[in-house]
Amino acid sequence: MPVLLFYIIYTHMSLVIIGTIAYDAIETPFGKTDKIVGGAATFAGLAAAYLYGQVKLIGVVGEDFGDDNLAILKSKGISLDGVQIKKGEKSFFWSGKYHNDMNSRDTLITELNVLADFDPIIPDSYQDCQYLLLGNLTPQVQITTLDRLQRKPKLVVLDTMNFWMDTAWDDLMKVLRRVDVLTINDAEARQLSGEYSLVKAADKIMELGPKYLVIKKGEHGALLFGDGEVFVAPALPLADVYDPTGAGDAFAGGFIGYLAKVGTINFNNMKNAVIFGSALASFCVEKFGVERLRELDEVGIQQRIARFAELSKFEIID
Amino acid sequence: MPVLLFYIIYTHMSLVIIGTIAYDAIETPFGKTDKIVGGAATFAGLAAAYLYGQVKLIGVVGEDFGDDNLAILKSKGISLDGVQIKKGEKSFFWSGKYHNDMNSRDTLITELNVLADFDPIIPDSYQDCQYLLLGNLTPQVQITTLDRLQRKPKLVVLDTMNFWMDTAWDDLMKVLRRVDVLTINDAEARQLSGEYSLVKAADKIMELGPKYLVIKKGEHGALLFGDGEVFVAPALPLADVYDPTGAGDAFAGGFIGYLAKVGTINFNNMKNAVIFGSALASFCVEKFGVERLRELDEVGIQQRIARFAELSKFEIID
Repeated sequence: MPVLLFYIIYTHMSLVIIGTIAYDAIETPFGKTDKIVGGAATFAGLAAAYLYGQVKLIGVVGEDFGDDNLAILKSKGISLDGVQIKKGEKSFFWSGKYHNDMNSRDTLITELNVLADFDPIIPDSYQDCQYLLLGNLTPQVQITTLDRLQRKPKLVVLDTMNFWMDTAWDDLMKVLRRVDVLTINDAEARQLSGEYSLVKAADKIMELGPKYLVIKKGEHGALLFGDGEVFVAPALPLADVYDPTGAGDAFAGGFIGYLAKVGTINFNNMKNAVIFGSALASFCVEKFGVERLRELDEVGIQQRIARFAELSKFEIID
Repeated sequence: MPVLLFYIIYTHMSLVIIGTIAYDAIETPFGKTDKIVGGAATFAGLAAAYLYGQVKLIGVVGEDFGDDNLAILKSKGISLDGVQIKKGEKSFFWSGKYHNDMNSRDTLITELNVLADFDPIIPDSYQDCQYLLLGNLTPQVQITTLDRLQRKPKLVVLDTMNFWMDTAWDDLMKVLRRVDVLTINDAEARQLSGEYSLVKAADKIMELGPKYLVIKKGEHGALLFGDGEVFVAPALPLADVYDPTGAGDAFAGGFIGYLAKVGTINFNNMKNAVIFGSALASFCVEKFGVERLRELDEVGIQQRIARFAELSKFEIID
């Protein structure tokens, strides 16, 4: 039964996510938290795990990172074989305060701790990686991850931020050449390209490597460029945004999780992936940290997707 | 033949637009103009006239306003019976310079001239007004216009701006109570409501009078609130925006022009009206002043509408 065998192998190809697994302390107009679980890989992993069964994380935490926190990820079926726990060291810690408009924030504390000399280990069990999300992290670690995979994944999605444009431009250029999709926000797209027009920015950025570009615009939705096409995704208008932390990561996780689920890469599926990413991000901001992302279910996600479809649907007959 | 008679009367109900008819001098990163035709009623009238046959303007110009400029409007079948020409006086003049991001501008010169004591005259031929656009203008003049119409129009759309919130709050509240739809930008919605969240802002603003609210977000599209529903309209991603002047007015003109054309007011038609408004605005910014709005045709507009439909369309099967 060679056909059946092929099918079984195919559906067990994994989605690997590398990124920070961290402690955050967050202040927004709605409240203030102590150290809570955060990190790009945490948010992205939780989002992706609702859409795809084989999610595997690469990351590093300190001895201070509670087992109960790792249990949050494990309970969603996420493999943590690639997550190093450094004895006697402390986890990456970030503390920030959001302004009243929720669109800008001040970083209060950044303690790299275990992240300072993070050398990603890729377990053998991760070498079936077909979908790779290089979550927001130093570009050098993203490159090392690509180098250490024995087989080029079917799809590589890169998430990054302005900080790396400021501090690690050359490495960022190197990793950009090796990815299929880049997800960044509009200010970052402008910084990366030197173009104000996002249409021109997209053209320039796609010359740097990625075939597809997703520009995340927060409350203004997202733009997808690629294959000579453009897609404009709505954001769900929300009465309250409790905590924007991790929304971009949840977006990236939902995005690649959907593509892993459908298994075919084309512009149409990319469009849907942007909608799933947007939907997961819209949940993320409804509570602090990963609280909301922990408690989702398939029906709730389907209903949110249906709301997105309703939001931007129109039909002009004449 | 009473039915036929009714039909004839109905299709001749007019769309009346009041607003400025002016000279503008504009500087953008793409160039600089001398005095060119501008004004809210001019942009809105041109946009509306592509969609509806009975567009009538109310406004005032000085003796300096060239016949060739009025001919631009007349050539589109727009009635100017309600446009006063003041002998020995000068037309309203505005001069502005846009910053590189095109989202902010400095006003260099504002000369009210004929606008200082504008007393709107509504010709008898305008009393068939069914659709009324109160274009951006002092709220007192908008109120006077409403007072001087013998019959309440079927639909009143109000366009206004932050300047009137700063300088004529009480009058603005009075006119708001008498309109069906308000169109403003996101910063103005926040200023008018005192709410940062646009969902909360919309709720508060609709308590002030309008049943529907359109929030124009420029390159980020537009939001429509009303009937307990929300619609998110995309903006067309453009490589170059030559001149944003009049885009909001073209939006309002396209919006009410479409509603006049279809003749039925409901949320579905409102959604389509937002798309037509967005399409007309997207043309407007492609050239300086009214240049682009002068040269459109039905096929071009239909093609642009089709692009808008394509932009935001997605279909998730599973």
